[in-house]
Amino acid sequence: IDQKDEALLSDILKDMHPADIAEIYEELSIEEAKFLYFLLDDDTAADVLIELEEDDRLRFLKALPSEVIARRFIGRMDSDDAADVIAELDEDRQKEVLSYLEDISMAGDIVDLLNYDEDTAGSLMAKELIKVKESWNIVTCLRSMRRQVEEVDDVYFVYVVDNDGVLKGTLSLKKMLLSSTDTLVRDIYNPDVIAVSADVHSEEVTNIMDKYDLVVLPVIDSIGRLVGRITIDDVVDYMREEAEKDYQLASGITEDVEASDSVWRHTRARIPWLMIGLAGGLLGSRVISAFEGNISEHPEVAFFMPLIAAMGGNVGIQSSAIMVQSIASGGLGFDTNFKKLLKEVSIALLNASALAALAFIYNFAIGSHFALTFTVASAMFSVVMFASLFGTFLPLLLNRMKIDPALATGPFITTLNDISGMFVYLILAAYFFEVFL
Amino acid sequence: IDQKDEALLSDILKDMHPADIAEIYEELSIEEAKFLYFLLDDDTAADVLIELEEDDRLRFLKALPSEVIARRFIGRMDSDDAADVIAELDEDRQKEVLSYLEDISMAGDIVDLLNYDEDTAGSLMAKELIKVKESWNIVTCLRSMRRQVEEVDDVYFVYVVDNDGVLKGTLSLKKMLLSSTDTLVRDIYNPDVIAVSADVHSEEVTNIMDKYDLVVLPVIDSIGRLVGRITIDDVVDYMREEAEKDYQLASGITEDVEASDSVWRHTRARIPWLMIGLAGGLLGSRVISAFEGNISEHPEVAFFMPLIAAMGGNVGIQSSAIMVQSIASGGLGFDTNFKKLLKEVSIALLNASALAALAFIYNFAIGSHFALTFTVASAMFSVVMFASLFGTFLPLLLNRMKIDPALATGPFITTLNDISGMFVYLILAAYFFEVFL
Repeated sequence: IDQKDEALLSDILKDMHPADIAEIYEELSIEEAKFLYFLLDDDTAADVLIELEEDDRLRFLKALPSEVIARRFIGRMDSDDAADVIAELDEDRQKEVLSYLEDISMAGDIVDLLNYDEDTAGSLMAKELIKVKESWNIVTCLRSMRRQVEEVDDVYFVYVVDNDGVLKGTLSLKKMLLSSTDTLVRDIYNPDVIAVSADVHSEEVTNIMDKYDLVVLPVIDSIGRLVGRITIDDVVDYMREEAEKDYQLASGITEDVEASDSVWRHTRARIPWLMIGLAGGLLGSRVISAFEGNISEHPEVAFFMPLIAAMGGNVGIQSSAIMVQSIASGGLGFDTNFKKLLKEVSIALLNASALAALAFIYNFAIGSHFALTFTVASAMFSVVMFASLFGTFLPLLLNRMKIDPALATGPFITTLNDISGMFVYLILAAYFFEVFL
Repeated sequence: IDQKDEALLSDILKDMHPADIAEIYEELSIEEAKFLYFLLDDDTAADVLIELEEDDRLRFLKALPSEVIARRFIGRMDSDDAADVIAELDEDRQKEVLSYLEDISMAGDIVDLLNYDEDTAGSLMAKELIKVKESWNIVTCLRSMRRQVEEVDDVYFVYVVDNDGVLKGTLSLKKMLLSSTDTLVRDIYNPDVIAVSADVHSEEVTNIMDKYDLVVLPVIDSIGRLVGRITIDDVVDYMREEAEKDYQLASGITEDVEASDSVWRHTRARIPWLMIGLAGGLLGSRVISAFEGNISEHPEVAFFMPLIAAMGGNVGIQSSAIMVQSIASGGLGFDTNFKKLLKEVSIALLNASALAALAFIYNFAIGSHFALTFTVASAMFSVVMFASLFGTFLPLLLNRMKIDPALATGPFITTLNDISGMFVYLILAAYFFEVFL
């Protein structure tokens, strides 16, 4: 179909949703993409640009002059999307694109948004919103809203502010529909409004919107003036990215990769943790080699080495996953750290006893000698206890050090627990074989 | 404060958000909770009930007569929340509560919603929505909307239907505000509306709403009639639960637990995978014991056993995590399975070569003899290759068998790769030590 049949193509494109067009784009070469782009009307073109993956968008924007970017794309976006796209360009390009914008107040909004730190409420918010003054009546409101509504895509809430622009509350469309036209806003607005300050962390924004089931969250500055609003779709994107990041970190992948990325990018994302695992394993081999005499004399000690190492890793991952989730959902309020410790010790005790008992029964049943039976059971108990506590405290420690606690899960904790488990096991083996044989 | 000072308490509660009150409730005994509940006004009480954790809600509802549940709680909820709460009760109780509902049409809605399968669009949707007929003009619309709006909390969209109730499109409040009062709905509604059928899976609903950045998604029956709408807050809840479930499965936790759950529940959630790990490890010990003679003669073989086992596990988790995410986001459209295989083989080859080379250099550097050096390097290469491919195919296989592919990550794949890695390593060791020594 790419053989330049313009009429047919623009007919097809007209009926498609920007997100679907974006998916097609990602399969095209730059030249084909440029050709298709000029068949789209301007609003659709801007929407498609937003839906593209970051890499593809950058590649595409590099091939276009700044003036086209400003006029055809940025000028037609909401301020939050515009700021996101511009933030991806390098600084000289940013200035150039901004200078071509016709709407000076929009350029100002974008510059404001670019100033907020990444991962704060300010970076998620858009400037477009509908606000009315508390001293107005319904007729004035409707007149003003008709004007404002042309710049805003969807109306979810009308915000009420005082003469200084300080957020006072919300005005529901329902109330407006049900009230007579000369009612004052002051008498019918809802003063219970949840707002966040622009410097609040995105994770907290997500938790607040999730907890209170909000679709839009107004953002205020340090003296309470309404500066923007965050819509749930931006938060959903953020949530999904964070969940994927945590999941990948737990699986030992360091960069945000998708199945469709290049082989090289996948390798780069996976190899760092594998290197750490290798280093850990080689260190472990030094630990074991210190016990060479024992192993040579009693090769049965070696049979259970992988088991002990693996159990330490498994238990450690479980404990750290629970902690990471509890830290992420902000759920550290009620339980004190001491109570947490006590609980984790209880769980660890139960698991450790059960696993040690089973290991004991197994060795007893297959007729291993006492030294080996005691070594495996007691090592199992110690390793499970140790790995649980370690898995619980490491995320807490990282969090206090302002490092993402999700780093603690996955290969990192597995490797640490492997080595320490091996060490404990071989020490115990040396002791019990001394005692019994 | 719990010393029954009613006036003070209800003052405090009046200013709090239901979600905050719910958090307090979870810390109270049944008796305290009941006492506090009767201080709340009815709408707040219903909202608080929705915000409670499932366990706490059930415990609380068990202590109340069915009539109170129906009148004070269910009757004041949106149909989707009401259906969720009722679905948690046992069947006899469900009938009893429904029979006490005063609003018969609401009882009917709830029964309809209860009929949809869990995890489908039907189970996520609510019946309350605002619809207008395409043949009406703006004045008729406004009059009808004023009536409908009393039953609906938030107005996001007005849906346009024909005389048979078939969904035709949406009418934006913006358009209504900008049009004259005698305009017909037919002339100004937007016919591009994305809707899902009630039997679509929740995961697809999430993907659609995320992809198209929707706040509300209308639900239609098999002949296109509008039956309900799904709001983004329900989807966010679902997404968060799914992300947590996947994360926990990857960490070897089988039940959905939170840090605040009981010790017993935590143990129950964690021990199944540990048992599988134990069984795997014991099986591994049988594999190793078959090579007892080699180990006793060459104890240095044992030094690298945990390393090889761990690397297999780490690589397997990485590959399976990528696949699980790619399946979950529906991203299996463009790449064929063959292309996927080719890519995974390339990544595996790169990683395997790098790790095998490093292992070779290390052993060469510390002066291990050739047999050991070759064994470790070649085993590393084989194990990484094997674990990658296995980690890629297992999720695909599970998905085709309609089992949650997330099960494939975590301890399951680690354990399988541990054992097979051990086997490969010891076979190679037996061969190379035969050849070189």
